Amino acid sequence: MTHRNLDNQSAAVAVLGLGPMGRALAAASLAAGHPTLLWNRSPGKATALVAQGAVLAPTVADAARRASVVIACVINYRAVRAVMSGLERSPRGTFVNLSSGHAAEARDMAAWAAQRGVNYLDGAILTPAPTIGTPAATILYSGPRALFDDSLPWLESFGGSSVHLGADAGTAAAYEMALLDLFTMSVGGLAHAFALAITEGIPPTAFARFARGIGGLLPDMADRFADQLTSGTFAADVSTIASAGSAVAHVRDAAAARGVDPAPLQAVQSIIERAVAAGHGGDSYARLAQSLVPADLAEAAR
Amino acid sequence: MTHRNLDNQSAAVAVLGLGPMGRALAAASLAAGHPTLLWNRSPGKATALVAQGAVLAPTVADAARRASVVIACVINYRAVRAVMSGLERSPRGTFVNLSSGHAAEARDMAAWAAQRGVNYLDGAILTPAPTIGTPAATILYSGPRALFDDSLPWLESFGGSSVHLGADAGTAAAYEMALLDLFTMSVGGLAHAFALAITEGIPPTAFARFARGIGGLLPDMADRFADQLTSGTFAADVSTIASAGSAVAHVRDAAAARGVDPAPLQAVQSIIERAVAAGHGGDSYARLAQSLVPADLAEAAR
Repeated sequence: MTHRNLDNQSAAVAVLGLGPMGRALAAASLAAGHPTLLWNRSPGKATALVAQGAVLAPTVADAARRASVVIACVINYRAVRAVMSGLERSPRGTFVNLSSGHAAEARDMAAWAAQRGVNYLDGAILTPAPTIGTPAATILYSGPRALFDDSLPWLESFGGSSVHLGADAGTAAAYEMALLDLFTMSVGGLAHAFALAITEGIPPTAFARFARGIGGLLPDMADRFADQLTSGTFAADVSTIASAGSAVAHVRDAAAARGVDPAPLQAVQSIIERAVAAGHGGDSYARLAQSLVPADLAEAAR
Repeated sequence: MTHRNLDNQSAAVAVLGLGPMGRALAAASLAAGHPTLLWNRSPGKATALVAQGAVLAPTVADAARRASVVIACVINYRAVRAVMSGLERSPRGTFVNLSSGHAAEARDMAAWAAQRGVNYLDGAILTPAPTIGTPAATILYSGPRALFDDSLPWLESFGGSSVHLGADAGTAAAYEMALLDLFTMSVGGLAHAFALAITEGIPPTAFARFARGIGGLLPDMADRFADQLTSGTFAADVSTIASAGSAVAHVRDAAAARGVDPAPLQAVQSIIERAVAAGHGGDSYARLAQSLVPADLAEAAR
């Protein structure tokens, strides 16, 4: 199936930005049978997709004016703004920004779009490019519910779960940042722990056997954090912040002694020390989260 | 069942150190029906256990001379050394040190014990005190295999898995440090991510739904790290270090903007930046582990 001429198509998807994620989105759209328009600053990235039936548009405006859903997947919100400035007039379809950024940037973008009469949804892709178009994909959206519902027939082609989180355009980006935070620290922890194991002569495969077990604790810990943060009570049913503090000091010193950069552990240790200094040493780990929240916002969260 | 007089007992366990973990070990030993001797610097911690049938010894030597297995569970190796100094002569039984410390400290302690004719095993308890005596407990041991095998009938009363890792007394502590590293970073990541979510107005319970999913990625990532570190090849099948770097910079800035201490993310970002500067930007995350290992040790690990 090819769509060499889309002038008469009324249900096309436009994908603006053809990095690895943009290409995956366009490929999934094509695979679902949607007429698919492409635009990228350097048009060479479109070659393989054009061979599969996509149509490369010469300008953003040219891609957007034909599409029911205009997907932007570029490096950051500054680039989104540049892309949107290329729209000659409001696109008929909904502009769906799947680029990464902060919640505040998403809200600013939504306001900017509203001033120009552009239908705007913000989104955040939680899973890597190879998951797109498969059941493993998860994409979060926020913005007007009706826009999401209307766009869903196209968005569903990206696979997996398409979750609408609320009318505030910043919500998807807020979730993305907080989840990236956890992912970053987890990957950093894996890398750091494997490095320390290697310096101790532990074979990586032998270490992985036990590292799997530690990793497997996280899902239930996330639920316990949520329960305690919601109730505002931090009973230490397992370990206290104070006992974690002395264990972490051991590990930090072991890393330093082995020449493995102790900074990530020191950063966590500092958070623990501040919580202990604030009188929370006998509390559970979930209190560490609350102790990181600035006081004015902590009150609002309760 | 009480054992008020253990002078004629030949199969007793002695537990030196009655913090929460020492008390859990002693309780599990009692529950398994082993005559159990206790010693603690402040004897008041023994009261509940004595009511369950344990016998409080007035000195370390008094506890140790009657036991087949002498368990030390104190705050650090300095305290272990102080406790061992209280042995008037070599105990008949095996001295099993379950206190936390570095591999080098465990090796020093093993050498010190060997000079005095003390049978010495080192161990590391991976799971919290409430797991002791249940199937959820995991305790690692290292030192002479025969000592482990002979002690196992008593050690098994602590529950779960008792794993012997090798003859080098430092191995159990090495595993413990590297696993605590991963645990620390994971808990720190959960705390930091929940904090960022709260500052963005995300309800903790709504956030936990997605945080569970991120946490659930870790076990398989641990295996992929092990495979790549073993083979020394770091093909980026999913995401590259360079793309992680730009995502982490977003998150770090979002945290800073919300008043959530960005230091843990900055520490991971610095590791990423050094790996990119070393030419590894196109590699997988597992390369971050290798890049943290000092060059002289990295060669030995391959």
